[in-house]
Amino acid sequence: MATHSRALDLRHGRVDLGHGAGGRSMAQLIEQLFLRHFDNPWLRAQNDGACLSLPPDAGRIVMATDCHVVSPLFFPGGDIGSLAVHGTVNDVAVAGGRPLWLSAAFILEEGFPLADLERIVVSMAEAARAAGVAIVTGDTKVVERGKCDGVFINTTGVGVAVPGVTLDPANIRPGDAIIVSGTLGDHGMAIMSQRESLSFESELRSDSAALNGLVDAILAAVPGVRALRDPTRGGLAAVLNEFAQAAGCGIHVRESAIPVRPEVTASCELLGLDPLYVANEGKLVAACAPEDAPRVLDAMHAHPLGRDASLIGYAQIDERCFVQMETAFGGRRMVDWLTGEQLPRIC
Amino acid sequence: MATHSRALDLRHGRVDLGHGAGGRSMAQLIEQLFLRHFDNPWLRAQNDGACLSLPPDAGRIVMATDCHVVSPLFFPGGDIGSLAVHGTVNDVAVAGGRPLWLSAAFILEEGFPLADLERIVVSMAEAARAAGVAIVTGDTKVVERGKCDGVFINTTGVGVAVPGVTLDPANIRPGDAIIVSGTLGDHGMAIMSQRESLSFESELRSDSAALNGLVDAILAAVPGVRALRDPTRGGLAAVLNEFAQAAGCGIHVRESAIPVRPEVTASCELLGLDPLYVANEGKLVAACAPEDAPRVLDAMHAHPLGRDASLIGYAQIDERCFVQMETAFGGRRMVDWLTGEQLPRIC
Repeated sequence: MATHSRALDLRHGRVDLGHGAGGRSMAQLIEQLFLRHFDNPWLRAQNDGACLSLPPDAGRIVMATDCHVVSPLFFPGGDIGSLAVHGTVNDVAVAGGRPLWLSAAFILEEGFPLADLERIVVSMAEAARAAGVAIVTGDTKVVERGKCDGVFINTTGVGVAVPGVTLDPANIRPGDAIIVSGTLGDHGMAIMSQRESLSFESELRSDSAALNGLVDAILAAVPGVRALRDPTRGGLAAVLNEFAQAAGCGIHVRESAIPVRPEVTASCELLGLDPLYVANEGKLVAACAPEDAPRVLDAMHAHPLGRDASLIGYAQIDERCFVQMETAFGGRRMVDWLTGEQLPRIC
Repeated sequence: MATHSRALDLRHGRVDLGHGAGGRSMAQLIEQLFLRHFDNPWLRAQNDGACLSLPPDAGRIVMATDCHVVSPLFFPGGDIGSLAVHGTVNDVAVAGGRPLWLSAAFILEEGFPLADLERIVVSMAEAARAAGVAIVTGDTKVVERGKCDGVFINTTGVGVAVPGVTLDPANIRPGDAIIVSGTLGDHGMAIMSQRESLSFESELRSDSAALNGLVDAILAAVPGVRALRDPTRGGLAAVLNEFAQAAGCGIHVRESAIPVRPEVTASCELLGLDPLYVANEGKLVAACAPEDAPRVLDAMHAHPLGRDASLIGYAQIDERCFVQMETAFGGRRMVDWLTGEQLPRIC
């Protein structure tokens, strides 16, 4: 669009209401920021929707959505941009889809620095490229100062379902193994350390990462995996309770088998938090038949994002659907759903 | 989920941070509000993503996204819920897709009344049913009081591309007819009248509507339509300029042929607005070969949402890509892009 030639001041400029009004300013923002960094043929067509050719054998697609409202916007190991890509890529992947396309919709606060927005957009573009997905369509809205908090981002992902794979927690049976792909609590505690300006913050990094490669590796090794889920808000505790509820069985895990970094344990203790409830953005929980567990573990261990994978327990007959944990001291405790909020705006 | 049996207080309750935390409160909100009203098999599966079977002949899909931040949330002729469904259904439809599935992601402000949220959810559910689409996956985030404005909603739509149809403004040629499906400015002026508490507000109603049925009718009559677009933010002026830019030609329209309700004209005059720049949510602009224009018009006139359709002008050779209008008084003026913001948070 040659007529939108006036350059955005990406160094000192700020978002104003005109950037969301459908006129020349919005066209400039789209062209000079989003289109420049997300560049691909679908976005370049600048239609209201993207037209996407399916692979010839596509019988089913998988669709997932997430709004991202994380605070602060930038944190060790990522920012709202990379998080928005990873979160939705992971939701598509653990539902059995190979993520291909993302939409990205922004709600911007009037006055937000364009330099920060560009930093976020660059981070999204890099995360999308690394995950092998294209950001094919988008939207930008601007609200008045004080009506949002800097920037909120929705990403919605579409992928093609992996043929022959059905991931559903309802398929979990007593005796099935429960495996986590790595250490728990890293993302949530990285965010909390930023918010609380904790002295040990430099040791804590978000685990935010795209899991579609790891999921591919697991499904290639064991197509009959019963269920995968990424333990984000509500943490491992929420996933285990969802699995138990969906399957109508209990779950028993051993605390000593659950990998948690010492610095995460320390910061959780300081803040009175339980790592089982803390959000992760680069981990998954798998349930599989006990005889498949070694191959699932091997596939995880062979992948950079699954090196610390651990078999943490088993599903068991229990019509009350309780999740129970054998503690490190040999006791036993219930792992209930999180009640109330633990960590608001963690993702 | 039998364990989430405590009932939400949908009459007097309010959103709290726990409703977005991934624990029991969030599960209750999903079950008792979203699942209850949007009920369908995909949502009921409660996976992180929905797995959707494609029609056997699906070769391409269309994907579109919109964040909705309209203020006020309720207005004559609709609310943020129905608008969020219509807006995305229309974006998919004008890009040549038959919309089938929507995601719905909510950003809620702490303290927002659950009764208002239910009213919005019911309205979304009704709009989706009427448009023939299912809300198959979703997300809920809650931010602290003062960090958003009641509720923001992202909807992302996926549809199957209509075979044999390619809608692209780049295909528009000099001589092509430009047709609007009805009166302009109704949505924007309904919102403005609410905001400004204008005395004539009772006469102004949003035109918010799902256009996929009208698009079906147009494409059945004339599969070779060059381009369709819904004139939302930026109004008719933005669409005409986008068409001209994409096609590399000029556009000439006659003011007297552009349908505008007298009450919209009156309120625009009062507020110093130009109906050409005011948002619509139930109208589309079509470009077609001149010999196809009568059939496009007939198809529109035969549909309840196209009764006031009108041929407003033609594309013409003009390498400057100007959009020009012959005024009602016989003069001629440029119709440029909107510069700056005219109506913030109109959708």
